[in-house]
Amino acid sequence: MSPQVGIIMGSDSDLKVMQDAANVLQEFAIPFELTVVSAHRTPLRMIQYAETAVARGLKVIIAGAGGAAHLPGMVAAVTPLPVIGVPVKSSNSIDGWDSLLSILQMPNGVPVATVALNAAKNAGLLAVQILGTGNPALVQKMKDYKMAMNQAVKEKAGKLAGEWPNQFDSGTTSI
Amino acid sequence: MSPQVGIIMGSDSDLKVMQDAANVLQEFAIPFELTVVSAHRTPLRMIQYAETAVARGLKVIIAGAGGAAHLPGMVAAVTPLPVIGVPVKSSNSIDGWDSLLSILQMPNGVPVATVALNAAKNAGLLAVQILGTGNPALVQKMKDYKMAMNQAVKEKAGKLAGEWPNQFDSGTTSI
Amino acid sequence: MSPQVGIIMGSDSDLKVMQDAANVLQEFAIPFELTVVSAHRTPLRMIQYAETAVARGLKVIIAGAGGAAHLPGMVAAVTPLPVIGVPVKSSNSIDGWDSLLSILQMPNGVPVATVALNAAKNAGLLAVQILGTGNPALVQKMKDYKMAMNQAVKEKAGKLAGEWPNQFDSGTTSI
Amino acid sequence: MSPQVGIIMGSDSDLKVMQDAANVLQEFAIPFELTVVSAHRTPLRMIQYAETAVARGLKVIIAGAGGAAHLPGMVAAVTPLPVIGVPVKSSNSIDGWDSLLSILQMPNGVPVATVALNAAKNAGLLAVQILGTGNPALVQKMKDYKMAMNQAVKEKAGKLAGEWPNQFDSGTTSI
Amino acid sequence: MSPQVGIIMGSDSDLKVMQDAANVLQEFAIPFELTVVSAHRTPLRMIQYAETAVARGLKVIIAGAGGAAHLPGMVAAVTPLPVIGVPVKSSNSIDGWDSLLSILQMPNGVPVATVALNAAKNAGLLAVQILGTGNPALVQKMKDYKMAMNQAVKEKAGKLAGEWPNQFDSGTTSI
Amino acid sequence: MSPQVGIIMGSDSDLKVMQDAANVLQEFAIPFELTVVSAHRTPLRMIQYAETAVARGLKVIIAGAGGAAHLPGMVAAVTPLPVIGVPVKSSNSIDGWDSLLSILQMPNGVPVATVALNAAKNAGLLAVQILGTGNPALVQKMKDYKMAMNQAVKEKAGKLAGEWPNQFDSGTTSI
Amino acid sequence: MSPQVGIIMGSDSDLKVMQDAANVLQEFAIPFELTVVSAHRTPLRMIQYAETAVARGLKVIIAGAGGAAHLPGMVAAVTPLPVIGVPVKSSNSIDGWDSLLSILQMPNGVPVATVALNAAKNAGLLAVQILGTGNPALVQKMKDYKMAMNQAVKEKAGKLAGEWPNQFDSGTTSI
Amino acid sequence: MSPQVGIIMGSDSDLKVMQDAANVLQEFAIPFELTVVSAHRTPLRMIQYAETAVARGLKVIIAGAGGAAHLPGMVAAVTPLPVIGVPVKSSNSIDGWDSLLSILQMPNGVPVATVALNAAKNAGLLAVQILGTGNPALVQKMKDYKMAMNQAVKEKAGKLAGEWPNQFDSGTTSI
Repeated sequence: MSPQVGIIMGSDSDLKVMQDAANVLQEFAIPFELTVVSAHRTPLRMIQYAETAVARGLKVIIAGAGGAAHLPGMVAAVTPLPVIGVPVKSSNSIDGWDSLLSILQMPNGVPVATVALNAAKNAGLLAVQILGTGNPALVQKMKDYKMAMNQAVKEKAGKLAGEWPNQFDSGTTSI
Repeated sequence: MSPQVGIIMGSDSDLKVMQDAANVLQEFAIPFELTVVSAHRTPLRMIQYAETAVARGLKVIIAGAGGAAHLPGMVAAVTPLPVIGVPVKSSNSIDGWDSLLSILQMPNGVPVATVALNAAKNAGLLAVQILGTGNPALVQKMKDYKMAMNQAVKEKAGKLAGEWPNQFDSGTTSI
Repeated sequence: MSPQVGIIMGSDSDLKVMQDAANVLQEFAIPFELTVVSAHRTPLRMIQYAETAVARGLKVIIAGAGGAAHLPGMVAAVTPLPVIGVPVKSSNSIDGWDSLLSILQMPNGVPVATVALNAAKNAGLLAVQILGTGNPALVQKMKDYKMAMNQAVKEKAGKLAGEWPNQFDSGTTSI
Repeated sequence: MSPQVGIIMGSDSDLKVMQDAANVLQEFAIPFELTVVSAHRTPLRMIQYAETAVARGLKVIIAGAGGAAHLPGMVAAVTPLPVIGVPVKSSNSIDGWDSLLSILQMPNGVPVATVALNAAKNAGLLAVQILGTGNPALVQKMKDYKMAMNQAVKEKAGKLAGEWPNQFDSGTTSI
Repeated sequence: MSPQVGIIMGSDSDLKVMQDAANVLQEFAIPFELTVVSAHRTPLRMIQYAETAVARGLKVIIAGAGGAAHLPGMVAAVTPLPVIGVPVKSSNSIDGWDSLLSILQMPNGVPVATVALNAAKNAGLLAVQILGTGNPALVQKMKDYKMAMNQAVKEKAGKLAGEWPNQFDSGTTSI
Repeated sequence: MSPQVGIIMGSDSDLKVMQDAANVLQEFAIPFELTVVSAHRTPLRMIQYAETAVARGLKVIIAGAGGAAHLPGMVAAVTPLPVIGVPVKSSNSIDGWDSLLSILQMPNGVPVATVALNAAKNAGLLAVQILGTGNPALVQKMKDYKMAMNQAVKEKAGKLAGEWPNQFDSGTTSI
Repeated sequence: MSPQVGIIMGSDSDLKVMQDAANVLQEFAIPFELTVVSAHRTPLRMIQYAETAVARGLKVIIAGAGGAAHLPGMVAAVTPLPVIGVPVKSSNSIDGWDSLLSILQMPNGVPVATVALNAAKNAGLLAVQILGTGNPALVQKMKDYKMAMNQAVKEKAGKLAGEWPNQFDSGTTSI
Repeated sequence: MSPQVGIIMGSDSDLKVMQDAANVLQEFAIPFELTVVSAHRTPLRMIQYAETAVARGLKVIIAGAGGAAHLPGMVAAVTPLPVIGVPVKSSNSIDGWDSLLSILQMPNGVPVATVALNAAKNAGLLAVQILGTGNPALVQKMKDYKMAMNQAVKEKAGKLAGEWPNQFDSGTTSI
């Protein structure tokens, strides 16, 4: 099956952050592709990537970049697909503020769906949710995912209860 | 046809910003609903709104709020649908930084697709793009929308050319 | 005796910060409970925790969270009890600014008593002061606590005086 | 009945912000006093105000100040009572950041319960909640207050429903 | 004579800022062209503008944009010419921080010569200085320009001296 | 008597802020001079101003500037006299942050005594305090000045007492 | 000889920063005293320190503190002496912004001569310059100090010249 | 051949950052000189450096500095040559914001071509581009440099393709 999500990043040094998006897509069994596309060092490659995205069957693009991060916004300028932007706190970044604002503050007409700094995992989950609008099975999978997170927190609460007083969970009120 | 997008906002004073999202959806002929849901003043209404969203046929939720803006993230905590967050620069905001960070910096597991400060128009366009993943006609409409924006810029460039020198457009190279 | 203070945090990774609040309450012999309640991963658990707080005998809730920190404000939305918010500088935080603003900048009608970044100790002391408004013995204990801090500084000043000139303390004027 | 809450501010120019706290206390029928106490222009008056607060029957102090806002923290240094700090965005402030950080970032041992920028109304409500820990009638009043806020939002939602589509409230699901 | 400097901006609303660059170039008698090129609404026009710049005889490009300002960096990605970036404090900007960081924080390999917020006048002067590296007459003109600025300050000092005491200029030491 | 304090500013547009320093010096009967000296437009005038300051009898220099504010630090680099820096929130400033940091963050070896944004009045008072280290009469005058400020606050408190309850001042405890 | 400068700090953990001030004063043979005075833990000690400063012969006070740093401003509120404030980047600080703004942004009437973050060395030098206004020998010493710094830079430039090309210093133009 | 570019820095501790500029110039075979010139410790050396720059044959000056970074702006005040400023994140800097703003926010009339924090490499490349305006061979070299960067990214993409799915590059569309 052809990839539904394209994961791109400005530099291979962003891979350690961006592979969290890939891992989520694998977990949800969504075919994807992943490569390096630099807005500033390979501008034509970037344009072509964005121009061919619909024809190649992509439904969503996840783009991560650091510093003056132009990749997500430029890809969004070219493709009609939804683009998810991941601000990466790279070594040449000012505490991440530059990447965050460069990706988020897009002008009217060209949105980028921005997630938190380094939050490639959330970019993957958002891609799943987006694909879910045309695929009810994914909505159910996302419900299950949320249920599992919920359960994991309660298990941690249960473990803490051994060490620390906790009247709430020892009563009958816990959901 | 039942609404596909829910537009909610923390206060009716956010309406002057948030109606830009409604206008975009009307332009793309996408049925939506719009109401006030306050995370802090009507927490149970918020929970119920989010819990019933899938059953009521919503595919995407757009949530706008200012200050310590918890509405988008809390709705995203409850529903498996994609949630688009619009940071609103309300009167009780610190230049918008509080709403921006409160919406964007969601923890792993619960993304909010954040757009620029006050960018409800982009929230509407992003909702169209998201719905387009399951509706090829919307992808074509979005291409047309982009083409029209492109044309509008060139017309402005044309007007400017009367007043200011511009060798680029007077040649044969303009795209 | 049933707990008077509920200490909750968004993730068990916040425990290393939040246990300072527990330590203070133990020092002042105030019964408390402590557990993990995530606004984003266990929203209904959070609502129920806040809804049952008065009935379970809690007087004050201390809530700590990092990033887009919605826990303190959402608990404050549901319960009529005073809620103390502790911004935690978690690993997914932008230098703590996101948690700080997400907790502090609550809209009119729903206050959160915010303390400094990572200042769970101060959250514990503030809870003691709050309980002191209905318990004069605690006011006296807080006076003693302040006196002890005062004394500790003067002892440090005394030690420094061995190494560094200090005319002020060698005179008769020190308080 | 002697005042239970002391409202102080660094300058009479802060009154237009700080009187919101007074209004809330009047609404909840809580006796209070209000005056100007400047940390920098009347330091001894400030010390004496804080030193006599317990003896004069105060239970809570609300202190508002702008710029390098030392009043809340210095009063908290002297009195064992809980001190609520209101950062005021005064004309000599850098967008409020200076007052906010000067009040919030207190060292371990001396908390200030900080509310949002200019949020004197929330300071008043927090004082009510704090007094409620020793006065169950106030807890009930605070529940009623929250109920009224909740109702007001729903009425606004009702009004909006005339103009904008809203399937959620037209169904039977509204809480 | 063909234009040596290209002045481009992301939107015609930037013209009120950017025409300061044009005015400077006119003052120095340097032929230029000026038009609107939007990175996000006309990405291919932007690429073509940058790709043809050398062939059309341009020596320097001045690019101004606001918000997530990608125009200067993207043009710099395509052309080997020096690109001067002007961060514009547009209405959709967060106090200018977004445009400033989006333009300045370019990755290694692709510099943008950034000037101060809204400083299109300085962009024009910098273009003159850059052209001066291949044109000694311009260096002399720039010296004269600086001399005139110097003179203007001293004239203002002279006027102030009527109202305010000034021993420095009334002596013999003024340069 | 020759001037003891030199007040300089980078532009005559800073005069509306900087004249507060002059007013204070007049109030304390301290002879001063005032003029425009631009670091960037009259660098040699600035150097000469600083080089001749001691010989001309100046004891303190007050320098105000906005934006990239180099005047105070550069004057401090040349003269052995204490230099007081006033960050001016000029029209070309980013909310004053640029002037504030450009003046304050001087490297080791070359201090600038920085006061608050636009606080030329405080610069004047600081100059008086500095001159007071060699002139006990000024120390007494500064005590009187502080006493008058103290009195003015209490008078305002007195006026407020007519409108608002104030147990503190109606007792016998006011200082 | 009695101390002329008082160096105080909010906590003994600030000593590693603040001793740079002491070292400078020793280098200039100016008698000083150094101790710990906490605004928040020993408020009366602080008041008394400031009240007795003139009588004890102090001419200048250097006060360093971190976080919500109230010590410099509160001492300046009480004493007519010039107070130099050193913002300390303590562990409980938000990158130093809180201490910097808490010290710098003093209201009209009560200046604090603020130096750069952690710049206790510059605080010491500023104290020397201030004392120099009443002591011409110190002005000469400060000139010598500046000359030595100047010389040290040129020696470093000389060393670099071995490794790197430097036409400037190899000519006859170096000052 | 005499140097065409002068690289200066405020302290020899900036060399580890600034030598990247030198390396680039060596790579492009452009003669340069490099030395230490401190605005604050050697102000006259700085003035002389700038005053003699044109006569010594320099065409461009690259100046790096940290903290309150006055070197680039002050050199630009004196010389008619283009000055490239490199904000250095030195140890005495507040996350680099101080150097960045001190260099970038120059007033009208005196531009500094500012590059990203620590981006001395980009300063070198910008100098090459500037010299290229009078030297077509350098324009060609810069095109080759860009081509090589482009190629390097595609090689990295090729390597990644072994590990990760990538439909884009395995098709025939890659540029």
